[in-house]
Amino acid sequence: MPYTIKIINLEKTIHAQKGELLADKILEYGIDLSVYCQKKALCGKCFIEILEGNLPPLDEIEDFLLRKNRLSQSHRLACRYKITGDLAINIPPESLLQKTFILKTGIKLPLAIDTFVKKYFGEINKPGLDHPHSLLSEWGKHLRKKQLRIQLKLLQTLPGILKDSKQKVTTVLYDDNEILAVEPGDTTEKSFGLAVDLGTTTLVVELIDLNTGESIDAATENNAQMKYGMDIVSRISFAYQKPDNLKKLQAVIIKNLSHMIESLLEKNHIPQDHVYEIVFAGNTAMNHLLLGISVDTLAVSPFHAVFHRLSAFTANELGIRLNLNAKAYVAPNIKSFVGGDISSGLQATDLASHKGNLLFVDLGTNGEIVLKTEKKFVATSTAAGPAFEGMNISSGMLALPGAIFKVEKKNRLILHTIRKEKPQGICGTGLIDLIALLLDEGKITPSGKISGEKDTIRITEKIAISQKDVREIQLAVAAVKTGIQMICEKYRIKKVDLDMVYIAGAFGNYLDTKNAMRIGLLPDIDPAKIVYVGNASLAGARALLLSRPARKRTESLIRKVEYVSLASDPRFQDCFIDSLNFGDGNSSR
Amino acid sequence: MPYTIKIINLEKTIHAQKGELLADKILEYGIDLSVYCQKKALCGKCFIEILEGNLPPLDEIEDFLLRKNRLSQSHRLACRYKITGDLAINIPPESLLQKTFILKTGIKLPLAIDTFVKKYFGEINKPGLDHPHSLLSEWGKHLRKKQLRIQLKLLQTLPGILKDSKQKVTTVLYDDNEILAVEPGDTTEKSFGLAVDLGTTTLVVELIDLNTGESIDAATENNAQMKYGMDIVSRISFAYQKPDNLKKLQAVIIKNLSHMIESLLEKNHIPQDHVYEIVFAGNTAMNHLLLGISVDTLAVSPFHAVFHRLSAFTANELGIRLNLNAKAYVAPNIKSFVGGDISSGLQATDLASHKGNLLFVDLGTNGEIVLKTEKKFVATSTAAGPAFEGMNISSGMLALPGAIFKVEKKNRLILHTIRKEKPQGICGTGLIDLIALLLDEGKITPSGKISGEKDTIRITEKIAISQKDVREIQLAVAAVKTGIQMICEKYRIKKVDLDMVYIAGAFGNYLDTKNAMRIGLLPDIDPAKIVYVGNASLAGARALLLSRPARKRTESLIRKVEYVSLASDPRFQDCFIDSLNFGDGNSSR
Repeated sequence: MPYTIKIINLEKTIHAQKGELLADKILEYGIDLSVYCQKKALCGKCFIEILEGNLPPLDEIEDFLLRKNRLSQSHRLACRYKITGDLAINIPPESLLQKTFILKTGIKLPLAIDTFVKKYFGEINKPGLDHPHSLLSEWGKHLRKKQLRIQLKLLQTLPGILKDSKQKVTTVLYDDNEILAVEPGDTTEKSFGLAVDLGTTTLVVELIDLNTGESIDAATENNAQMKYGMDIVSRISFAYQKPDNLKKLQAVIIKNLSHMIESLLEKNHIPQDHVYEIVFAGNTAMNHLLLGISVDTLAVSPFHAVFHRLSAFTANELGIRLNLNAKAYVAPNIKSFVGGDISSGLQATDLASHKGNLLFVDLGTNGEIVLKTEKKFVATSTAAGPAFEGMNISSGMLALPGAIFKVEKKNRLILHTIRKEKPQGICGTGLIDLIALLLDEGKITPSGKISGEKDTIRITEKIAISQKDVREIQLAVAAVKTGIQMICEKYRIKKVDLDMVYIAGAFGNYLDTKNAMRIGLLPDIDPAKIVYVGNASLAGARALLLSRPARKRTESLIRKVEYVSLASDPRFQDCFIDSLNFGDGNSSR
Repeated sequence: MPYTIKIINLEKTIHAQKGELLADKILEYGIDLSVYCQKKALCGKCFIEILEGNLPPLDEIEDFLLRKNRLSQSHRLACRYKITGDLAINIPPESLLQKTFILKTGIKLPLAIDTFVKKYFGEINKPGLDHPHSLLSEWGKHLRKKQLRIQLKLLQTLPGILKDSKQKVTTVLYDDNEILAVEPGDTTEKSFGLAVDLGTTTLVVELIDLNTGESIDAATENNAQMKYGMDIVSRISFAYQKPDNLKKLQAVIIKNLSHMIESLLEKNHIPQDHVYEIVFAGNTAMNHLLLGISVDTLAVSPFHAVFHRLSAFTANELGIRLNLNAKAYVAPNIKSFVGGDISSGLQATDLASHKGNLLFVDLGTNGEIVLKTEKKFVATSTAAGPAFEGMNISSGMLALPGAIFKVEKKNRLILHTIRKEKPQGICGTGLIDLIALLLDEGKITPSGKISGEKDTIRITEKIAISQKDVREIQLAVAAVKTGIQMICEKYRIKKVDLDMVYIAGAFGNYLDTKNAMRIGLLPDIDPAKIVYVGNASLAGARALLLSRPARKRTESLIRKVEYVSLASDPRFQDCFIDSLNFGDGNSSR
């Protein structure tokens, strides 16, 4: 006859047979008990409080973890507790799986934290005459793992650290099989990682607490590679000229990132030794340049990448100084022109597991478009250029304090700036609002001509829109519009058939749907179907940093997505020229 | 009804069902067909000649490999050939598994070559518009492997190498999962490794062809660490004094080895780039010192090691310059005082798979003794000191040209020297012969006293034996004698119960059994039971370099062997003092 286990604080009752493991039963009933250490009695995160029922004596390990966690004597590890009778228990909130939300805008998708990097505190036994093991085998016993990989340099330091810390150390394990670091005392609370959005125009580095998944701080800077080429194509050409240029491009971005990371860590009082992993999400060319890998094959037909998927290597190899053995992982490229920024974006939105006809559009310097139907999972890319990031626009700027990000007309023109600072320039969303407004007012014709005599429209004393600026926006919009239209047509998906359109990109929530539709950037559909997911590339990098299953899913996802080349489609030219007209125009075909 | 396959040149007939793979059937019948690449049609080593029967058209890969191997059109890869009818075939000798003999003396144990390092030549497809893979995935397809590990530095060079070599390259794979190197053109013939006997007194580096298992050349030198301590205990003490001393000890041996390796490679016209792995066999302290790992815990009770078993790391990390990504592997230690020299020695003699009561004695600076009975597998160690290597002996020297290695008396004293050169000194085996002779002549008493007035016995004008020399030998012999006696007594094995005694050590075939028994170094048993296996430690290193199964076996073996501490046995002192008398004396108890 099964025993009854009442979980008082969760108001649930579960049943179990004699001898079954309490942790297994709790998990079986769908309760998210933390099994951080895979039920090895290492982490002490699955303590439950026994209110009624058998309270077996504490073993040495439980006692150690109980004291470490300052819990009452009525707590036991669920991963050690064998059921022998009816029970009434509490599962403390701390013993439930840590979850975090990866996307900051749009949709709320909880992600269970299961990092590659895990820290365990404990006392390493001294080998004795009666157990003549080696220090390393005692370590393996402590971590319940027979064979552990360790770098020679780290192994050399182990005896000293152990001696100095009186055998009480925190071990940093990577993917359960490699010792990354060993630190004296209990440093389990101090575990950090970095997620990097490796944009062509903008770099974002986010500092993340690997224990909680919480974003601690972030830094945004212009990509310093811009001095060698504003867009990715000109950087590929520059690298193609001579091998030294590739080195220059790599050096400049490493310096750029190193500086950002240093400042972030300093500002948040986190020593670099406590940062154990960095994950990069960037387009294919950007991540090749980051790794110093030739982009020559991306410069000429058939435009192929050197790699799509790489195992984690060390940040040190890359010249980025974190913990000596910290790992670096690059979100895998889907195809030559659909890179790790998109694979991570798809991971962040969990597109692969949603049903219906879904469109994912990343409005970055490259406009990547992914269509998922019941039958197909296809991606394409369009060269939008950096106009949406305020580049190549006379009064343009990044979405930084002082940027006009929203423009309204209520009797008079109202300019909203970031942090309400004095207008410094205009960023992507502001430009889109402005063009829509000027179209409505007839100050710009549907073909993009500034009406009247002057070829400049003044907004403030310092800020104006030139004919050239309008042309830049027009080209960027047309690129995206053509892409969406052609991919939908190819797979016979009409606008009305679209169940959801995810808009990713630095635009975030600022993009005004009505205005975006007005100029033709977004298809003219039910606005409720449009979801702004913000910087999904960065969010995906965060997911890849925080979740081993997410990384696994992404690595298998990239094999499923097909690439469709727009440029090789004979209808491309016509469609592009048609798309140059502002508005939804021909997209209803 | 099964088909009949006549193997003409081997005079065998085998049977198979329709659709079965020819390679599988050949292997099933116990014929050692080469499956170097695990039947992936990569290496082209399993070609068979079809004399009668179906000759299917060559596919692209077979055609490529056929031309590479300059074979006739009637050859097909057995790993691709599906049986569809009766056959008559020849299996060319080149298609049979390469085997080598690991031990050079004593017993002949054939070892099938299955190296960790494997080289494959082929043409890497260029990704095309129709197959937009990455370069690395094309590589994976070529090697029939989805995910390959590769160092960032190597990945950076790949596009250039491929371009320069018109896609025709040789890939060096390690353990089927990591690309170690990529070389333009076909370099499969050039694959080398190093086996190192890391002796306390003597270093031996052997250069080995990884394709044939053949030993190309070897170099022997005194261990340069000797300037910091003649024996291992004094080196441990030296390292214990201050951390800098450990670094000194490591630096000196790395320099020593590097010099030996450089000379060996230069002499044999082998570039360091073609050396992909180095395997070290040394005692526990020696391999800690090699890796720059503290020996402090070996200096004080309970005398434990920092590691027993380590995964392969890179030679580069160690400061030894071979191929940039060449691997370094250290034969695993069995226990604190029974190191990788013994685990490799046991591998070389394949002791674990032999039946009966077996004794393995390594007569190095440390005398390690392993006893295997039907029930027990135990090891112990005794501090013999370096006397057997000619050290601490007034006229002593290593077994180098000019050393007296054999002494006989036929009317007059006959001194045999290595390479018949003029006597320079006397080495271990010569000393044993000499002491036995002097005992017989009564010039030395059984208690080790030189009879008569003088305390020196002159042998040649320059070479003499002093009372101190006799004492050194006496102590070394007593250490080994005590060890053998005590371990046998402990497990109730009488001398007559011993089925085989393997004697390892630089002594090799030169040791005169009768004389060794006369002085008490070897137990007085049927001389036919004594097998001299020579430098089994070096032979084992060779086995660990050439055979993946051997390495696996050794790593599991070290968990099976128990350690017996002689020093902690209360009868040790008495037994040792008794053993100081030359001769088999009390060992018949």
